[in-house]
Amino acid sequence: MSNEVNRRWLLASRPDGAPVAENFRLDEAEIPVPGEGEMLLRVIYLSLDPYMRGRMSDAKSYAAPVPIDGVMEGETVAEVMVSNNPDYVPGDIVLARAGWQSYGLSDGSGVRKVARGSVPISTALGVLGMPGLTAYAGLKNIGMPKEGETVVVAAASGPVGSAVGQIAKIRGARAVGIAGGAKKCAYLIDELGFDAAVDHRAPDFAEQLAKACPDGIDVYFENVSGKVFDAVFPLFNQFARMPVCGTIAFYNATNFPEMETYVPTLMRAVLTKRLRIQGFIVYDFASDYPDFARDMASWIEEGRVKYREDIVDGIEQAPEAFVGLLKGKNFGKLVVKVGADPVSS
Amino acid sequence: MSNEVNRRWLLASRPDGAPVAENFRLDEAEIPVPGEGEMLLRVIYLSLDPYMRGRMSDAKSYAAPVPIDGVMEGETVAEVMVSNNPDYVPGDIVLARAGWQSYGLSDGSGVRKVARGSVPISTALGVLGMPGLTAYAGLKNIGMPKEGETVVVAAASGPVGSAVGQIAKIRGARAVGIAGGAKKCAYLIDELGFDAAVDHRAPDFAEQLAKACPDGIDVYFENVSGKVFDAVFPLFNQFARMPVCGTIAFYNATNFPEMETYVPTLMRAVLTKRLRIQGFIVYDFASDYPDFARDMASWIEEGRVKYREDIVDGIEQAPEAFVGLLKGKNFGKLVVKVGADPVSS
Repeated sequence: MSNEVNRRWLLASRPDGAPVAENFRLDEAEIPVPGEGEMLLRVIYLSLDPYMRGRMSDAKSYAAPVPIDGVMEGETVAEVMVSNNPDYVPGDIVLARAGWQSYGLSDGSGVRKVARGSVPISTALGVLGMPGLTAYAGLKNIGMPKEGETVVVAAASGPVGSAVGQIAKIRGARAVGIAGGAKKCAYLIDELGFDAAVDHRAPDFAEQLAKACPDGIDVYFENVSGKVFDAVFPLFNQFARMPVCGTIAFYNATNFPEMETYVPTLMRAVLTKRLRIQGFIVYDFASDYPDFARDMASWIEEGRVKYREDIVDGIEQAPEAFVGLLKGKNFGKLVVKVGADPVSS
Repeated sequence: MSNEVNRRWLLASRPDGAPVAENFRLDEAEIPVPGEGEMLLRVIYLSLDPYMRGRMSDAKSYAAPVPIDGVMEGETVAEVMVSNNPDYVPGDIVLARAGWQSYGLSDGSGVRKVARGSVPISTALGVLGMPGLTAYAGLKNIGMPKEGETVVVAAASGPVGSAVGQIAKIRGARAVGIAGGAKKCAYLIDELGFDAAVDHRAPDFAEQLAKACPDGIDVYFENVSGKVFDAVFPLFNQFARMPVCGTIAFYNATNFPEMETYVPTLMRAVLTKRLRIQGFIVYDFASDYPDFARDMASWIEEGRVKYREDIVDGIEQAPEAFVGLLKGKNFGKLVVKVGADPVSS
């Protein structure tokens, strides 16, 4: 490590609308030295997720923003290089929030060991990690799909959406996915077994969605909002549930965009249809993790849940990949390969 | 009964905006004759409730509209006059949906006997009936107030709102009521024991509400919507719950009124604050009735729940009283005395 440096992406400025490459600055620093109880982590994979857009902004949210000149936050799969923490030894592969950098320190809080198994260690950032748990816990605690019900999810080829649809199928529900473009829609049906897929770019998107949901919508897993919500809203059945884990359509908005649905219309439907709308973030349901880890691993093993990764090579690609993520350019869970996996490389 | 007639209010026309007296027509018909299994009921008390505005309209809702020239629907406390139903005998006092008329038939479905006790039989339409259960079940199943939390309710001197505030107090929460005018606000604090009361007619209503809720709002029991919601919304704490049982502000609207809160703002808050917004009608929680009846009766007995009735004399007053109800003119549970109580008269 002697001639190596810690390459890291700092937040250079807060975006005005959609983030651009200039909001980030690549920095080189010395590899940090772990103190008492700390470990030095070498990042192998960095997860890129839509919530990071929120951290770039100083608008009030459930988590504090990244400070200007601070290292961008993010979850990583990393190798323990040096450990002053009795729970970890060098060579351990861990899940840790090391951020957008090649090396990081950790005192072990929030860290979990990643076991090597039949799936790549990068899945700890996707189907077996936070996005998978978001889908699992949101359906379990709020969506609660019953056999024969219709479950709709947007960004359906992404890590949360694809898990939502496949878990809905396992629960005996009908899964309808919304995605951008024919290729992603075909993937939903041909690979993931969704019952229907609708392209949100189609000019007659709302009509197509209505046709894809002839019995209405019982669960809408909301991670997008905006015009997708406008199309979903009139199709809600009585007692429909809407877990809200994201509103990507608004993340880059400087002013909130126009929507067809207004609050009075919404509230009247909430009452007359007895809708349940509830926001959550994955950490609210951390206690579901053990059940999730067991169920999801066996579903993957049995071939009932499939996943797709979109791996970008090199930490220098992170900003461009993240900018593209918010535009739906990725196809599958977006992960940046930051460093070598000591086993596969 | 030989020279008596059945006086009944028919829906003459559907309102365009706020209902007016001309939307109703007083009709006289023969007293109906019960068939096999049926009873003849003589109405003593007729309940007037905001939901009836919905039944006058043919907009899609959770219940079918009253047809033009149909008898207006409504819950009543009535005396059984003739019974071909083995479960009831003449002289029984029952709760039944006999409607806006002096006599009605019933096959016994949805009927319940009203026992005479320490409270008037009219309370079966209020604190011990549908409005009381609405408050009880909405708090139990959705609002779930915890000790020390702040519960806000509008139309707080009405039968639902007053029960919401008092049950919230029993659960150890802080109760803040919203009502129209100083007299109702004073009643909330002096008689019902609310911790604070805010007059929604005050020009600085939103500021006053914020001052009355220094620790934010954990539960907002929504029965009004409109500008009250706009003032409540920014005060929501993380994990706040909003049971929605009514949207009175919109009942008379021909177009939905302007609101300061828009769907994108709402959805972002649903996510970042993890709000739960859920509509319900009292019949969804019918299974809570036995617990409710037991708890509420003992709370009244112990003086922990107080109630107020606004009794209007004579069925001919029903339309005017109903029109006033939607303007907040009543003070307490609005009931029309249609016929004599055989015991008290």
